[in-house]
Amino acid sequence: MSEKNEHRIVAIHRAVLAKNEDLAACNRALFQEKGIRVLNLLSSPGSGKTTLLERTLIDLAPHVRMGVIVGDLATDNDARRMNGTGAPVVQITTGDICHLEAAMVAEALKRLDLSTLNILFIENVGNLVCPVSYDLGEEARVVLMSVTEGEDKPLKYPTMFKAADVVIITKTDIAEAVGFQRETALQNIRRVAPQARVMEVSARTGAGMEAWYDYLRSHL
Amino acid sequence: MSEKNEHRIVAIHRAVLAKNEDLAACNRALFQEKGIRVLNLLSSPGSGKTTLLERTLIDLAPHVRMGVIVGDLATDNDARRMNGTGAPVVQITTGDICHLEAAMVAEALKRLDLSTLNILFIENVGNLVCPVSYDLGEEARVVLMSVTEGEDKPLKYPTMFKAADVVIITKTDIAEAVGFQRETALQNIRRVAPQARVMEVSARTGAGMEAWYDYLRSHL
Repeated sequence: MSEKNEHRIVAIHRAVLAKNEDLAACNRALFQEKGIRVLNLLSSPGSGKTTLLERTLIDLAPHVRMGVIVGDLATDNDARRMNGTGAPVVQITTGDICHLEAAMVAEALKRLDLSTLNILFIENVGNLVCPVSYDLGEEARVVLMSVTEGEDKPLKYPTMFKAADVVIITKTDIAEAVGFQRETALQNIRRVAPQARVMEVSARTGAGMEAWYDYLRSHL
Repeated sequence: MSEKNEHRIVAIHRAVLAKNEDLAACNRALFQEKGIRVLNLLSSPGSGKTTLLERTLIDLAPHVRMGVIVGDLATDNDARRMNGTGAPVVQITTGDICHLEAAMVAEALKRLDLSTLNILFIENVGNLVCPVSYDLGEEARVVLMSVTEGEDKPLKYPTMFKAADVVIITKTDIAEAVGFQRETALQNIRRVAPQARVMEVSARTGAGMEAWYDYLRSHL
């Protein structure tokens, strides 16, 4: 590839991101107008985003009105899982695109009645790299890592963890079975993401979920 | 973004991939000339690529000469872990790039004595989406999924699994603890990746590793 072409790629990539920033600002203005908290959930595939949301949608349902936009390359499995909770869920399938973009979210918003919601969760495509570059208009970013993934994930994917407002360690019920070194993991999170609030949960047993719920309720 | 710009991005992305194909073909020719089997290992972050390789490097060391190129966004943790085995290991750090490219591998090859190797493992960046588009010159693609990630990963990341020559289910020692539904997972793999050889291993206990070793030794 010629140097000229490389420069053109960088320039166009910047243009794509700039356009995304504009659309994200539109989404954000809409969320503020409607008084909705919007959280962007990010993690590796299989870290437990959907399971965390399923339980959250059930446990907080009587008092908090929640909706979900969920992104996957293919299938509407996640939407179907969460639909069982009664909350409105919109699935975005991205094909081969490794992240959600503000424009996709804007499109999905047309299928939600925002005036009925307090909190909108956006479950991003499972990917610890690409989604970090795309602002969706969210108020906060929640990055999940499960106890099974290795304690050094924050060091190996620093850009994602640096952008986190909240880091949730998931699947703590199997921490012992997988030999999870909690202190090491917490140190690594603190080192890369000192700004982040850290929580430790098991959506299966319910352990630690109260801190997450307090966080969700705190800004309503 | 204008339609013209979108077309330009697609065109340039194609040019990048075409350039990668050329370099991958060079790598492949070099591997064939040297008589080295090269395997590209792909998975989510934390699926156990490094642990699988660590054990493999130790167990097969007396009879098979192996080397590793390992890609991460940041840190040389994985290279240091595998260096303990005595095998030559070269770390590539990609910064914010979500995949390895053939050019990066070509660069790393300069730091290996290929004439001493039977097998070269390339441990890709942990990502179930992006690396699939980039041929590195490998002979085969090995896609890992751990029992903790959910049985539907092949359905949700079909492009990756469709490109797999081998699918390895990892961490089988904790399958019961996480409620892994083996039959469902195997069905999903078969549906998306009927071409793939499927193995089930625990690199921790050693269960199932013999099938993997047989596969590695079979083509030497």
